[in-house]
Amino acid sequence: MPNLHDLFEPRSIAVIGASADRGKIGYRLVENILASGYRGEVYPINPRGGEVLGRRVYPTILDVEDEIDVACIAIPAASVFHAVTQCAQKGVKFVPIITSGFSEVGNLEEEKRIVAYARAHGMRVLGPNIFGVYSAKASLNTTFGPRDIQPGHVAIITQSGALGIAMIGKTAVEEIGLSAIVSVGNKADIDEADLLDYLIADDDTHVILMYIEGIKTGDRLLEVLSGGTQHKPIVLIKAGRSERGAVAAASHTGALAGSDVIFEAVTRQCGVLRAESLRDAFAWCKFLVETPLPSGENTVIITNGGGVGVMATDACEKYGVNLYGDRPTLKDIFSDVTPAFGSTQNPIDLTGQATDAGYHAALTAGLAHPAIHAVIALYCETMLFDIDQLATMMTTFSARYRSAHKPIIFSIFGGDRIETLIPTLRKRHVPFFTDVYEAVSCVGAMYAYFHHRTAPADAPEGVDINSRRIDQVVDNARRDGRGFLLAYEGQQVMAAADIATPQSHLAHNLDEAVAAAAATGYPVVMKIVSKDILHKSDVGGVALDLDNRDEVMDAYQAIIRSCRAQQPHAMIEGVEVSNMVPRGVEIIIGARRDATFGPIVMFGLGGVYVEVMKDMAFRLFPLSRREIMAMLKETRAYPLLLGVRGEAQKNIDGVIEAIMKLGTVIQQCRQISDIEINPLMVYEQGIDVTAVDVRILIGN
Amino acid sequence: MPNLHDLFEPRSIAVIGASADRGKIGYRLVENILASGYRGEVYPINPRGGEVLGRRVYPTILDVEDEIDVACIAIPAASVFHAVTQCAQKGVKFVPIITSGFSEVGNLEEEKRIVAYARAHGMRVLGPNIFGVYSAKASLNTTFGPRDIQPGHVAIITQSGALGIAMIGKTAVEEIGLSAIVSVGNKADIDEADLLDYLIADDDTHVILMYIEGIKTGDRLLEVLSGGTQHKPIVLIKAGRSERGAVAAASHTGALAGSDVIFEAVTRQCGVLRAESLRDAFAWCKFLVETPLPSGENTVIITNGGGVGVMATDACEKYGVNLYGDRPTLKDIFSDVTPAFGSTQNPIDLTGQATDAGYHAALTAGLAHPAIHAVIALYCETMLFDIDQLATMMTTFSARYRSAHKPIIFSIFGGDRIETLIPTLRKRHVPFFTDVYEAVSCVGAMYAYFHHRTAPADAPEGVDINSRRIDQVVDNARRDGRGFLLAYEGQQVMAAADIATPQSHLAHNLDEAVAAAAATGYPVVMKIVSKDILHKSDVGGVALDLDNRDEVMDAYQAIIRSCRAQQPHAMIEGVEVSNMVPRGVEIIIGARRDATFGPIVMFGLGGVYVEVMKDMAFRLFPLSRREIMAMLKETRAYPLLLGVRGEAQKNIDGVIEAIMKLGTVIQQCRQISDIEINPLMVYEQGIDVTAVDVRILIGN
Repeated sequence: MPNLHDLFEPRSIAVIGASADRGKIGYRLVENILASGYRGEVYPINPRGGEVLGRRVYPTILDVEDEIDVACIAIPAASVFHAVTQCAQKGVKFVPIITSGFSEVGNLEEEKRIVAYARAHGMRVLGPNIFGVYSAKASLNTTFGPRDIQPGHVAIITQSGALGIAMIGKTAVEEIGLSAIVSVGNKADIDEADLLDYLIADDDTHVILMYIEGIKTGDRLLEVLSGGTQHKPIVLIKAGRSERGAVAAASHTGALAGSDVIFEAVTRQCGVLRAESLRDAFAWCKFLVETPLPSGENTVIITNGGGVGVMATDACEKYGVNLYGDRPTLKDIFSDVTPAFGSTQNPIDLTGQATDAGYHAALTAGLAHPAIHAVIALYCETMLFDIDQLATMMTTFSARYRSAHKPIIFSIFGGDRIETLIPTLRKRHVPFFTDVYEAVSCVGAMYAYFHHRTAPADAPEGVDINSRRIDQVVDNARRDGRGFLLAYEGQQVMAAADIATPQSHLAHNLDEAVAAAAATGYPVVMKIVSKDILHKSDVGGVALDLDNRDEVMDAYQAIIRSCRAQQPHAMIEGVEVSNMVPRGVEIIIGARRDATFGPIVMFGLGGVYVEVMKDMAFRLFPLSRREIMAMLKETRAYPLLLGVRGEAQKNIDGVIEAIMKLGTVIQQCRQISDIEINPLMVYEQGIDVTAVDVRILIGN
Repeated sequence: MPNLHDLFEPRSIAVIGASADRGKIGYRLVENILASGYRGEVYPINPRGGEVLGRRVYPTILDVEDEIDVACIAIPAASVFHAVTQCAQKGVKFVPIITSGFSEVGNLEEEKRIVAYARAHGMRVLGPNIFGVYSAKASLNTTFGPRDIQPGHVAIITQSGALGIAMIGKTAVEEIGLSAIVSVGNKADIDEADLLDYLIADDDTHVILMYIEGIKTGDRLLEVLSGGTQHKPIVLIKAGRSERGAVAAASHTGALAGSDVIFEAVTRQCGVLRAESLRDAFAWCKFLVETPLPSGENTVIITNGGGVGVMATDACEKYGVNLYGDRPTLKDIFSDVTPAFGSTQNPIDLTGQATDAGYHAALTAGLAHPAIHAVIALYCETMLFDIDQLATMMTTFSARYRSAHKPIIFSIFGGDRIETLIPTLRKRHVPFFTDVYEAVSCVGAMYAYFHHRTAPADAPEGVDINSRRIDQVVDNARRDGRGFLLAYEGQQVMAAADIATPQSHLAHNLDEAVAAAAATGYPVVMKIVSKDILHKSDVGGVALDLDNRDEVMDAYQAIIRSCRAQQPHAMIEGVEVSNMVPRGVEIIIGARRDATFGPIVMFGLGGVYVEVMKDMAFRLFPLSRREIMAMLKETRAYPLLLGVRGEAQKNIDGVIEAIMKLGTVIQQCRQISDIEINPLMVYEQGIDVTAVDVRILIGN
């Protein structure tokens, strides 16, 4: 298959469906290509022949003598297949199909036929249903969007065409230069992962922005994202965060939106910066493309307005920005440049009395000091400040400290005089915003990326489990026609994975029950065992806290009597007698094979609280133990494991090992799709964690 | 005391510290007053005499013959008191003190002296440390900020001066007209509540925006806010949300920032719209001042971009906007105006193929239909759409439906052509934004206000408690020199408030313990009782789940032995024998007298989860039972009371009554500052809730 290099830097390009009619996309494509300064050959194709914009039109692509790297197709859907066959004959490498009317309106068969033919003939398809491709490297604008695209260092991949075209306009207004923008449309062949491969390697691309609605092959995407974020920041917007939004996204693109919670967790794990709104995404890209990575986390806020300083402090907490708090050092640095009624503590409050000279002095002092790694500079328009000086100051400082790896971001707030500065500051690529929260959110994104880049690169770890034994258990259940394991089978799986469970015995009669209880040790719990009884408690099939032989005998009889009476046709296998597990911290752990992303592990607050508190964290598996620990710490429930109210610390290592084991089961025993322990009882250190209830599902 | 009417609409104004020096605040004040079109008399005051801007300068205020309503003071701090005495002599009503250098730099005494003198002489003080007052009604700009302030219908009260001045500029850029802007500074006399009183009654003010850093008299403020939101929306920014931000706010203004969780809860209860960022606050004001309240909650999104439609759907969920979902009706309304490959389901997706005529038709259809109460119209710049038509359409529709009480908001996204529209649209007061989330957040704010205005106005309710008995218990504890109640005293308070507790008896010896257990009924719990032993479990002072006489005897001896051994000097009063409370849903309820806001009640997930999950809701007390129910529903834990996993519903009424009782205790027994029950065990309906652990603090 051809290398994507030739899609972004083709030596020649054909436009199938080129038109002299200004209202047609086929006209606009040729017009944009010619206007963009592309240095390769351009061949308009249309059976009617003639000329488009002074260029000769070839009746078919076969009539062109030159070799053609890219053939952009903009003709009615019914004619596309035929055009693709001609492209194949011609030896074209890439066919971006602008045309819509395929899978997005239910016409999946034709789309599949085209892609299959193309791939069988060594071609790759972009789209269909796209607005095209812009590549700064080739000075090539093969889109029907705006003509003028400013070259630069942000690459955009978008699943939405209308939004993509509007984004081109927006980047121009914001003076965000593009290295590339690509519309992926229906992703029938080339998908985000393919495009990322090229853009990650492309030196002109410094930041990548992706707009996604749904994902087809998640595991490959994550692999590419994971590798890519080691080289450059990747900002992602995935619409369909909410339940109703996911439905809207699905109906819009036909793509599976999937669970957003999982998506959020796994993309973060890959170091991707996920933005909620377009505005945040653009702000982050604008900042990240202009800004060096810092050398540390000590951030100071310098402000001429106390109020915005306080708001920025709030925003720093919200976005995880670490405010430098060494009071003596801060005093040393700033006392000479701060008035007595201001504050040298972070935020550095120069007060509304600050002149431009005073502000300049404070920025100089802060930026020059090695203990400070990043500066958030806030400005409220006052009467005492020469605003032209402000613009100069912003330009100078941001240029000077870019090469010194010390990020500086400005937030400026005021009236007309501020408004007039904006176009100039944009043109000079000064990182500035007009809202404190927006500015700080950019710094937060930068530090999220900084943490990812500076985190130790752990090798994934694993544990030994008896996967052959587990497969046997699953095989048995399958032979039985079941898609799930029964309780005792779950216990067998736990044993094979070396996770402790309550001792338990199946008793077929009263004598066996009494013997089982004696063997287990009092107190015991008894539960009916029957494939036909799903909700055991509802039919009197459970007895708890049985302290002696008499209570066991009474309970056995009561259980059998009650179940017989309430479900006369149920096949009763017997009664399970288990020792009663002492209370500990109840957590939930799980692992599953996600249809989109592959093996995933989960940790959260267990018991009945799972459903209401939804306090859970997820990770792609495999993982290192350090990363599992980080997952635990993400939950609000984590302090329970550290011990609250003076309790001793719990067996956290036991929890980590248990999660490692569940992940390994899902990895190695491919028949199992879901495994969940709730609750897993966690005790003090040195005491085994115990899986009280295990639920295991078998996949298809 | 004079009515605030005369501060905003004075017949005459003096500027003490008027100056001919253009660099001085005293010059700027006179300049702004004269430029603003004020029709009253203006008297510059300065011992040097002469002229300022063609006006005669009087040496002292006493030299003016006319009566003076307002004397604005802008002279050094040390001279202010003397000037105030002269104002008093002259019979001035209001003295806005621009001068800084008072309590904000620790000079509290002088500030108090000035205010005390002023009030004793029938004057009221605004500030000190302010930038002044603007009042559209009087065409009066007594600030040293920008000269031109656009008159309109938003009133701003700000605690930060620098921010306030910048806000004036920002409102002008955004074409947000002001009815008033007032700086409150140190709030030594006039505070937000006083100003609100005037602005709420002022017909020219349609929306009020407040910027607050700290609050002095919270209960009065809440009362005024509560009344005010029945007349107009009040948008509030309180900086210092985060812990660090609160510290920064406190050091900035000397105002107590207080707990933000409580602040958030009580202001929401008053119907105040709290904005996080300045941008949100301005957006909401801009929208609310232009927009009628809707007649219902059915909102539709109409879009020409599928992607932004999905994002808007996500945003609607985030901001609590109800998307109309009646599919047949939506199809009826929109099928004629939506292409086949679009969607008539909400969001209505006209696709990127939509022309301006198509978009117009869809807006017309949606706005005309009675089932639809509000429209969110999204536009992505495309090549097919005549953008001049867009501006006309936006203007026409927003004007037409303003009088029809059907809000419409636009979010427009694109390049240069969009950018050029912005100033025009602002001038025409069309409610539009350039980000989907921002637009939807405005609709969310509108509906939050709508819900507040349409909620039934319940009268606060109460319950009977035996407050005399409670006072006796507290008096005893006070005589004992304690600031808290012991466990048995807590039980006495519970009994007086008619909240069930476990039965319990104090046993002084083995025989009494056995008798107590028999009287209580097995199983029982035993706990050491000693003022000297704080952590009972740590010294072996607790025994749980004792099933019979033998176990009670063993446990009694074990407890006494262990406590004697580990704390030989502890005064042991005996052992408490209580019946063991069956497990139920463990919640926490509480009530306290907040130093800023007065009586507050609390509900949340109880047990050890309180500290880690922080799942709690708060309300000002008194309340109606319906409002307590709403408080319960605010927590994530609420479904536990409804019964999860097929359990029966719990005794929710019992919880509501218990909260009502705690609130009433705090209201009536003014010696008690804090009362907390954790856990309160909640069982099925018909079974009393039980206070297992009660903690009561006595105030000063």
